[in-house]
Amino acid sequence: MQHCLVPPGTVRPRDDHDHADRIALSAATTEGVQMRTEDVRTWIAERREANVFHVEHIPFAALDQWRFEGGTGNLVHSSGRFFAIEGLHVVEQDGPHGDGPYREWWQPVIKQPEVGILGILAKEFDGVLHFLMQAKMEPGNPNLVQLSPTVQATRSNYTKAHGGTNVKLIEYFAPPDPDRVIVDVLQAEQGSWFFRKSNRNMIVETDDDVPMWDDFCWLTLGQIAELMYEDETINMNARSVLSCLPYHDEAPGALLSDVQLLSWFTNERSRHDVRATRIPLKDVTGWKQGVEAIEHEDGLYFKVLAVAVKGSNREKISWTQPLLESVGLGVAAFLMREIGGVPHVLVHARVDGGFVDTVELAPTVQCTPRNYAHLPAESRPPFLDDVLNAPPSRIRYEAIHSEEGGRFLNVRARYLAVEAEDMFDPPPGYAWVTPAQLTALTRHGHYVNVEARTLLACLNAASAQPRRGV
Amino acid sequence: MQHCLVPPGTVRPRDDHDHADRIALSAATTEGVQMRTEDVRTWIAERREANVFHVEHIPFAALDQWRFEGGTGNLVHSSGRFFAIEGLHVVEQDGPHGDGPYREWWQPVIKQPEVGILGILAKEFDGVLHFLMQAKMEPGNPNLVQLSPTVQATRSNYTKAHGGTNVKLIEYFAPPDPDRVIVDVLQAEQGSWFFRKSNRNMIVETDDDVPMWDDFCWLTLGQIAELMYEDETINMNARSVLSCLPYHDEAPGALLSDVQLLSWFTNERSRHDVRATRIPLKDVTGWKQGVEAIEHEDGLYFKVLAVAVKGSNREKISWTQPLLESVGLGVAAFLMREIGGVPHVLVHARVDGGFVDTVELAPTVQCTPRNYAHLPAESRPPFLDDVLNAPPSRIRYEAIHSEEGGRFLNVRARYLAVEAEDMFDPPPGYAWVTPAQLTALTRHGHYVNVEARTLLACLNAASAQPRRGV
Repeated sequence: MQHCLVPPGTVRPRDDHDHADRIALSAATTEGVQMRTEDVRTWIAERREANVFHVEHIPFAALDQWRFEGGTGNLVHSSGRFFAIEGLHVVEQDGPHGDGPYREWWQPVIKQPEVGILGILAKEFDGVLHFLMQAKMEPGNPNLVQLSPTVQATRSNYTKAHGGTNVKLIEYFAPPDPDRVIVDVLQAEQGSWFFRKSNRNMIVETDDDVPMWDDFCWLTLGQIAELMYEDETINMNARSVLSCLPYHDEAPGALLSDVQLLSWFTNERSRHDVRATRIPLKDVTGWKQGVEAIEHEDGLYFKVLAVAVKGSNREKISWTQPLLESVGLGVAAFLMREIGGVPHVLVHARVDGGFVDTVELAPTVQCTPRNYAHLPAESRPPFLDDVLNAPPSRIRYEAIHSEEGGRFLNVRARYLAVEAEDMFDPPPGYAWVTPAQLTALTRHGHYVNVEARTLLACLNAASAQPRRGV
Repeated sequence: MQHCLVPPGTVRPRDDHDHADRIALSAATTEGVQMRTEDVRTWIAERREANVFHVEHIPFAALDQWRFEGGTGNLVHSSGRFFAIEGLHVVEQDGPHGDGPYREWWQPVIKQPEVGILGILAKEFDGVLHFLMQAKMEPGNPNLVQLSPTVQATRSNYTKAHGGTNVKLIEYFAPPDPDRVIVDVLQAEQGSWFFRKSNRNMIVETDDDVPMWDDFCWLTLGQIAELMYEDETINMNARSVLSCLPYHDEAPGALLSDVQLLSWFTNERSRHDVRATRIPLKDVTGWKQGVEAIEHEDGLYFKVLAVAVKGSNREKISWTQPLLESVGLGVAAFLMREIGGVPHVLVHARVDGGFVDTVELAPTVQCTPRNYAHLPAESRPPFLDDVLNAPPSRIRYEAIHSEEGGRFLNVRARYLAVEAEDMFDPPPGYAWVTPAQLTALTRHGHYVNVEARTLLACLNAASAQPRRGV
């Protein structure tokens, strides 16, 4: 299906202000047409029970169609598609950056050159935009089933590379009707675990009578905003897509003008010198490969494992695959502060070896504290202790979310927004920006990293709906 | 000098509308305070004569501090800085793209990981913004001296890696005063010759009494606009920086809304599958290395050469370096068409092996015709013949410009804007967009390629000044 992009003969306004108005209305609407918010948890639990899934660790040798490639030792799929576990060598001239105290290191990394689609379908019911969320099983989710976008599909998925079923509703996204696109942007995923991976984050509207299945539900943004406060409920892909919603900026301005913010960002991107080179997995120094895991010699960072999955409502009934498992609970937190009456968050221009271009804007704090537990205080990431020691009275948002369950096994982090005790000059690499400025940047890729997008989705949803303000 | 980015305690508007007003005034002003436009050519000629430069081909063996590295055969500088000539292997799943008819090829490529600064200083005289242009010698310029930005410096330059003199006025740009930044963005250069090279394109304003030298001149945008019609006068770096000026959008809209344009672009970036891998120069298939040149077996595309330069007013008095020389005159052209009374140009989502992310927006036609001369008509790039055969009555802009004279030897292209004979549905990979939409995208990197930026700078300058409309 190739939609025609061509002339009605006349021009249209460049901005779709209408979208933002309707998003605000949806965010202010906490009762949806299909399900009460308090029933969503029960529904997810039902979906979990309706389809019995088993996920179990297996030795690498028990992987089906995955093998360690001769020569490189890379862990690859026999089709050459999906993803591969390779090696990465990172050298930073001015570090340390990333989730560790070193300026040079080696690590396994996920190489996934295909661009997948993360698409949420939107539709007005009773004049209010609702978003079609799917209760979806992913083998790495701690609770298996979470709310995902309507569609999440690698190109291999929807072109049927693995011989599974069709991806439901993919026809709304590949390609979308250009007159009904609200969001369509390539956004990067974790730069510490993926090498230059992007997915296409999309929100597309329809007036169709969309076919429904038991694992789909239409929710307003107000409902989703409430669910953002629940632990491990909205999956990473959904959070990422929702962060790109074009909310209005109601504030009178910001500490930095947009040009100043972009200039600061350009300076951050220019001043760092990071060389990240893909290497064979077998050449990754400091890691040991066992029968059931590839892990760091210090037991830190993460492990590469293999799992067997048996399910009943996924594209394929059973399969095996590698997953990454983190060694501890992560922390991703924004320090917040009102400046001139406008809420600001302290962003960090973070360097990660897997970023396409040196730095992206990250939360004030983003790390796995256990990786630093053995180190002296001065080697710990800036602001980590401020965040961990903040009294409940200064916590404006908190929930535990897990990362993408198709690649990560029980990788969870505490996502926080913490009121700063006082206003201060940001140190080099940090800047005070408004959530509206970050929202504007999500129209483009490679500005706001995936952890900051999760926090942005939570803050935007919370501040736009009336019951629980941030 | 670290400027303080911190709180006046209050917020400011996010948009600097004031900039666009003052840019419009400068574009409408065709008489500058320092020099009449018609005298600029004479001044450039004087600068050329005031400093005697010699550039001569030399054998690679006569290069000083440059050598073919053992093992890889890469052509590198002994400091490990500046740039290197390496190899590139490109495979496209759905090509051909780039400047040739193949889906898989090998080529030499320039690897320059350092981010340089291209900075133009701006200042109001008599209430009108003037821009400080430098008459600068670059060894690869066909006429040696052209108008360049106030500052063009690699990091090696301004940190004195080669032991030369300081870069004049660099203090305005590294870092800039955040309150005086008009443009500050990383933009990529030629994706067919560079591997992922970006430079920092900057315009910074000052009220200072700026010291002056004989090779600097303050010009209004109206003056620069007239000079854009002169062949080989405004150098590539200046064209690139000027393309990022935030002109107002006076038009009522565009054929595609901004969201639609970004969605189309996202689709273009997603649908292509390009694998570009750096390889040792010695492994580049189809190229032969001689005493004085590395060239393609068919005599097409480009050559790698070495030159010796002797000058007197550059950062260093004499030096040797490699340069790339093209095999023929290039063509870079936009087809244009008014839609609903608003001028649109036909952009091409072009794939190049050296792009950071798959595609950038390019002119409708961008190629070296000689590379296709031996091929049947159906293998020639789309729209090439429309552009080459357009009668003068349909040519809205034309000039010959040369590419960066610090890396390219006599690499020249005809830059054209040609009125399309009629309106048509763009084929896949092409879209009608307004110059204002492209201008908005130049706030961000990796959207508008360097050839399209040259055309955009020419079109914006021409349409904003009264004497010669496009």
